[in-house]
Amino acid sequence: MIIKVDENISQENMEKLLKRVEELNLKPHLSYGTEYTIIGLVGDTSVIDVNRVLTIEGVLDVQRVQEPYKRASRKFHPEDTIVKVGNVEIGGNNLVMMAGPCSVENEEQIMTAARIVKKYGATMLRGGVVKPRTSPYAFQGLGMEGIELMKKAKEETGLPIICEVMSISQLHEFGPHVDMIQLGARNMQNFDLLKEVGKTNIPVLLKRGLSATIEEWLMSAEYILAGGNENVVLCERGIRTYETAYRNVLDLNAVPMIKKLTHLPIIVDSAHSTGKYWMVEPLGMAGVAAGADGLMVEVHPEPDKALSDGPQSLKEDVFKHLMENVEKIANVLGKSFKAK
Amino acid sequence: MIIKVDENISQENMEKLLKRVEELNLKPHLSYGTEYTIIGLVGDTSVIDVNRVLTIEGVLDVQRVQEPYKRASRKFHPEDTIVKVGNVEIGGNNLVMMAGPCSVENEEQIMTAARIVKKYGATMLRGGVVKPRTSPYAFQGLGMEGIELMKKAKEETGLPIICEVMSISQLHEFGPHVDMIQLGARNMQNFDLLKEVGKTNIPVLLKRGLSATIEEWLMSAEYILAGGNENVVLCERGIRTYETAYRNVLDLNAVPMIKKLTHLPIIVDSAHSTGKYWMVEPLGMAGVAAGADGLMVEVHPEPDKALSDGPQSLKEDVFKHLMENVEKIANVLGKSFKAK
Amino acid sequence: MIIKVDENISQENMEKLLKRVEELNLKPHLSYGTEYTIIGLVGDTSVIDVNRVLTIEGVLDVQRVQEPYKRASRKFHPEDTIVKVGNVEIGGNNLVMMAGPCSVENEEQIMTAARIVKKYGATMLRGGVVKPRTSPYAFQGLGMEGIELMKKAKEETGLPIICEVMSISQLHEFGPHVDMIQLGARNMQNFDLLKEVGKTNIPVLLKRGLSATIEEWLMSAEYILAGGNENVVLCERGIRTYETAYRNVLDLNAVPMIKKLTHLPIIVDSAHSTGKYWMVEPLGMAGVAAGADGLMVEVHPEPDKALSDGPQSLKEDVFKHLMENVEKIANVLGKSFKAK
Amino acid sequence: MIIKVDENISQENMEKLLKRVEELNLKPHLSYGTEYTIIGLVGDTSVIDVNRVLTIEGVLDVQRVQEPYKRASRKFHPEDTIVKVGNVEIGGNNLVMMAGPCSVENEEQIMTAARIVKKYGATMLRGGVVKPRTSPYAFQGLGMEGIELMKKAKEETGLPIICEVMSISQLHEFGPHVDMIQLGARNMQNFDLLKEVGKTNIPVLLKRGLSATIEEWLMSAEYILAGGNENVVLCERGIRTYETAYRNVLDLNAVPMIKKLTHLPIIVDSAHSTGKYWMVEPLGMAGVAAGADGLMVEVHPEPDKALSDGPQSLKEDVFKHLMENVEKIANVLGKSFKAK
Repeated sequence: MIIKVDENISQENMEKLLKRVEELNLKPHLSYGTEYTIIGLVGDTSVIDVNRVLTIEGVLDVQRVQEPYKRASRKFHPEDTIVKVGNVEIGGNNLVMMAGPCSVENEEQIMTAARIVKKYGATMLRGGVVKPRTSPYAFQGLGMEGIELMKKAKEETGLPIICEVMSISQLHEFGPHVDMIQLGARNMQNFDLLKEVGKTNIPVLLKRGLSATIEEWLMSAEYILAGGNENVVLCERGIRTYETAYRNVLDLNAVPMIKKLTHLPIIVDSAHSTGKYWMVEPLGMAGVAAGADGLMVEVHPEPDKALSDGPQSLKEDVFKHLMENVEKIANVLGKSFKAK
Repeated sequence: MIIKVDENISQENMEKLLKRVEELNLKPHLSYGTEYTIIGLVGDTSVIDVNRVLTIEGVLDVQRVQEPYKRASRKFHPEDTIVKVGNVEIGGNNLVMMAGPCSVENEEQIMTAARIVKKYGATMLRGGVVKPRTSPYAFQGLGMEGIELMKKAKEETGLPIICEVMSISQLHEFGPHVDMIQLGARNMQNFDLLKEVGKTNIPVLLKRGLSATIEEWLMSAEYILAGGNENVVLCERGIRTYETAYRNVLDLNAVPMIKKLTHLPIIVDSAHSTGKYWMVEPLGMAGVAAGADGLMVEVHPEPDKALSDGPQSLKEDVFKHLMENVEKIANVLGKSFKAK
Repeated sequence: MIIKVDENISQENMEKLLKRVEELNLKPHLSYGTEYTIIGLVGDTSVIDVNRVLTIEGVLDVQRVQEPYKRASRKFHPEDTIVKVGNVEIGGNNLVMMAGPCSVENEEQIMTAARIVKKYGATMLRGGVVKPRTSPYAFQGLGMEGIELMKKAKEETGLPIICEVMSISQLHEFGPHVDMIQLGARNMQNFDLLKEVGKTNIPVLLKRGLSATIEEWLMSAEYILAGGNENVVLCERGIRTYETAYRNVLDLNAVPMIKKLTHLPIIVDSAHSTGKYWMVEPLGMAGVAAGADGLMVEVHPEPDKALSDGPQSLKEDVFKHLMENVEKIANVLGKSFKAK
Repeated sequence: MIIKVDENISQENMEKLLKRVEELNLKPHLSYGTEYTIIGLVGDTSVIDVNRVLTIEGVLDVQRVQEPYKRASRKFHPEDTIVKVGNVEIGGNNLVMMAGPCSVENEEQIMTAARIVKKYGATMLRGGVVKPRTSPYAFQGLGMEGIELMKKAKEETGLPIICEVMSISQLHEFGPHVDMIQLGARNMQNFDLLKEVGKTNIPVLLKRGLSATIEEWLMSAEYILAGGNENVVLCERGIRTYETAYRNVLDLNAVPMIKKLTHLPIIVDSAHSTGKYWMVEPLGMAGVAAGADGLMVEVHPEPDKALSDGPQSLKEDVFKHLMENVEKIANVLGKSFKAK
């Protein structure tokens, strides 16, 4: 940690500052410049609250040198983490394809969707039973009834299932029935929920918040890891920008950066980041090419009857085409994946 | 609602589209152009899920003409809403000053802070007992013990108290003891929590999400209003942008825009939007000048000992100066407020 | 174009509005709703200044249905444009690789760089001779001396050359000597320069502005096309967001969207969007996978001696690896490209 | 400047790094940590190109401690700069009101506008004669003919005049005839133009770029100051964000921050940041309350006939109301200003 101090800081404040540093078991190294004095702190600074230092008069700025996360950092865990979800492995040399409808709507819909995604090589089945809806007047999901339908689809296809949970009570209600839970963008900083997830061993897909920084995202992963749950997979799903031509901008810079900073796997959701079905394939292929450990897409037997996210849902033929191309790109990268 | 249709849409899809419109009890008006056909829909379109229309092939775009919120709209409720919090009125011709420490830390700290803010004319006492912290290793708040301290401060000063809640269980735990609850930026779209708040009658301060649009913010207010709780006050607290010179950008455009779109009061938090104590006064004054119904600021007896948000907390003399200036600006706008 | 009118508009203003519409040779279609009246305008609305309509009292909003650009629109030019630069074709089924140093520094540097990029299959040589530098104290480029060196490199390698111009005088000075000019992000809306480029026939690479929308970008292309120069190639180079982990966010959503909206080719610059050499390859591969017509990357014989953009410049071995992977991805997409 | 180095950096690279530091006449202070080594550099680091250091293998990050601008910095010029424009002083304890139409359209329009703004106390007359228009099909301004009309308006009212220039040739053409030139948001980083302005002594209003950081803005001011022209006034005019409810977000955080970092005056344009006439007054008042040295607003005798920016132009009565309120807010801040 670097502390930038005004050259005219009072002796009293300088002493206060150095005393505070000492209390934190850190060793200060001072460099006196013509305009500023710089104090370099050496030791474990990850737990320091920057604000505690910033409030001393004469302190102009505090910059971290060390990442504020530890368990999520590749520094302390150089090898890739591989998360096991049923018989599926996420991370390492594997490519995982999570596909299925945005929302579980009824038995026929989910069973048909499950058969389609299985047919072309998907490795996991997704399907929401609760939906974070901007409008209180929109379809809100089937709840536990939807979980039962997902289990039925799993029974037939053998695909592990992943469902979103939005609250602690849903975590406890749905958690024991699914193979993986998803924490949505709006809950990335629902810290009470993160802590509770940390107490379980359920594999979790942690979506990036709508305008979360990479660091905030990894800090949220740290919350879960710090609780003892190491089965964390990250999911890039687009960030909010000024651009209005599409819903979000898929941030593929995040893929190599995440690979550099952390050992956790990352998958790419090319549906929510675009909002349009014809953008899902090119951006899905781009995600795999950028090095993602998998994709999440939405498949619906009849998108124009979907109760949610119809415009970004893929029909059978579009999904088939995507899967064939994903296989080819995976081959280029030396990853094991087979569309059927 | 306006539907933009490709001139080459198939007859089958056009019929499907018009049938779907009919089912929604809306009347379509068609304008045939050279490149596009435009369908204007008249009737109550606030409950339509845009996506249901967008998925029909040949439909290029759907644009709302009507706001998707009803209860929050000034259109249906032209006069200003005045929210009563104890003996304090928020909205209309009043100016409310909410002040106090970021976090309740101990009895001496909160009692001293309460006396300071009372002394210079604050009308409400703020103080957090749970904190949404980015890091799992940071101070997390005193919980119910803090609530007891806030009640003690209220008893002595007579100031109504406002505390943040982050979950449904905290809502039920803290709600009966406080005069107003605060929903933080990270919970603006915690829809389950919004619904639960809607079932109560507790006045609520709804902070704008870190990168929430005006429309999303009003939709979140709509969730609470739709549940039956009409005591909603909005709070602008800065938005996330590319600028790194300060933590957030206080969006004062929001003040006149919110006044135009909704009848709900809006107050301005000039502390979180800037992160620096010396910016709180100029931006607080700017907020009042822009027409806000009040301010929220952080006051701490000794900011450099604060366990959270020290750098943006005001000392006694800075707070006094702010209050005197706020009184003068309030006078310019014909609002009733007296610093003491 | 859709005009949203207050139901309580005065008769006088409604007449004024309809008269103004008439003067523009547009036919209005009125839909009277319960809260708003909607006027659909049919005809060529691309030249209407929205503001002229918005200022009439009672007009609440004006929304375009038609794109404001014509010559750049795929609607009026369905087949892909192929831009010829020397013996290189950009667009259609081709993949172009533009590579070379950020800045031309001296003869040895540019000749070595040119040989490297030629060796592994690059199809064009890039090299800046003027640089838009944020700081007045930074290296500003060799100017015409650099152009002479680029020509020398072209002579030896046979690669067509592309150089940036930042002003009208540079356009006239450098233009006759290069095969393609580049307009940088900061000049995307230098309208006088765009108009002047429009009067020439020099192929132009138009970079997207730092925070330009897709529509603004295409409007800038329209400026050049409207002047008569049809040799326009677009270049996505990252947009500004709140994220600080990298310099910009490469917006690959733009690739399929640009392909949908316009017939002009698009290439991807994966160097400026990331700022780090180890991100250039994964994002370059992602760009090709998303459907771009080519890549622009920076290659320098000794990046750590580069006078500009060293951290994002590729060494020979990294460039070789990139080219081999680009060839494989190009094959997946059925595009003709060969790394040597 | 702080250099963050990998603990495992090779001895060879460490030596290369230290040698490069030495060549720059900087003294390195090393702090060896458990995971990183930190090197603090003391001396004049403002001219260092960060990239030259970053390219050495083992160097992980470089952070500036010192601002990269010198002449614009308050550090080296603590007292406020006061820029004289004719008989008007900008900065210090003065409040300047620049008002007039967006574009000069014809003699009657500009003379009427000039009389209105003079009548209610404006201290400068604005009026564009060239316009940066997104669309090649929109009104582009009267050019030199407009300058003549501005001079006529100046003759009658005595108000100094300010006009935008977009290129070096316009600078030389219009410069000698106006009292102040304006560099628009799109030209904030037109570095060739900045350099040329730096060679003159014409007072210049430098608008902040559409998504320029505070630091980039001050670096552009530095370009002009470095050339020898010290008459630089900054103008905040709104930044681009994700919000679509208004055109831009007026960033009033910039006002106290600019006052902290630089000695140059800052004025606020509350018209372009909002795009709507009814937002101009509340945000103009907010700008003055935040500490701005003046405002720029658009006044048009008949906004609904304006050839540009009609929706954000003020009619006579709205302008009168604004000026009366600005006077009151100025009084609160102890600034000298009188609406008449």
